[in-house]
Amino acid sequence: MGQCNCRKKRKDCQELTDVERAIETVINQFHCYAVKGQKEYLTPNEMQELVTQKLPHLGKCVGPLDEKIECMGDPDEAKLEFGEYWDMMGDAAKGCRRK
Amino acid sequence: MGQCNCRKKRKDCQELTDVERAIETVINQFHCYAVKGQKEYLTPNEMQELVTQKLPHLGKCVGPLDEKIECMGDPDEAKLEFGEYWDMMGDAAKGCRRK
Repeated sequence: MGQCNCRKKRKDCQELTDVERAIETVINQFHCYAVKGQKEYLTPNEMQELVTQKLPHLGKCVGPLDEKIECMGDPDEAKLEFGEYWDMMGDAAKGCRRK
Repeated sequence: MGQCNCRKKRKDCQELTDVERAIETVINQFHCYAVKGQKEYLTPNEMQELVTQKLPHLGKCVGPLDEKIECMGDPDEAKLEFGEYWDMMGDAAKGCRRK
């Protein structure tokens, strides 16, 4: 997956603080991988792609991807909603802090 | 609070992806406000400062700060641990997505 262009521009973009921009970056990745922002969840494959490509250093803190995908249930119907995605990023963050 | 200088430099900093840098930014803010990284939690006052100063646009999505602080219990002993801080940032993110 190349450069994602689905990022929605905000009118007040330049006023955002560094933390707010960081939060937006994490949000935007979710939408980039959710098949160009057309839906509100990630499939197991999309999640795997995102972690592999975007978390090369922190991904290992998320835990074994195979197990996570298996926990999501039937691969054809499994969905990772935004809240679960945020929690997964939190696992990466907690792992990063422990380093 | 001025520019925070407590950010720990990573050896492989330049290799991080945009999402990983964003996660680091969110982590670093926690440590910046936790009295210069000397402890692993935020007091109610530190949390309030962080939200007011660093989330001027997204802070309202976190919900009423007064209520949140009251829920934390005795102000002299209340602690916002990192996991709770991450969840709070998730509330801001979810609010941002709904816009």
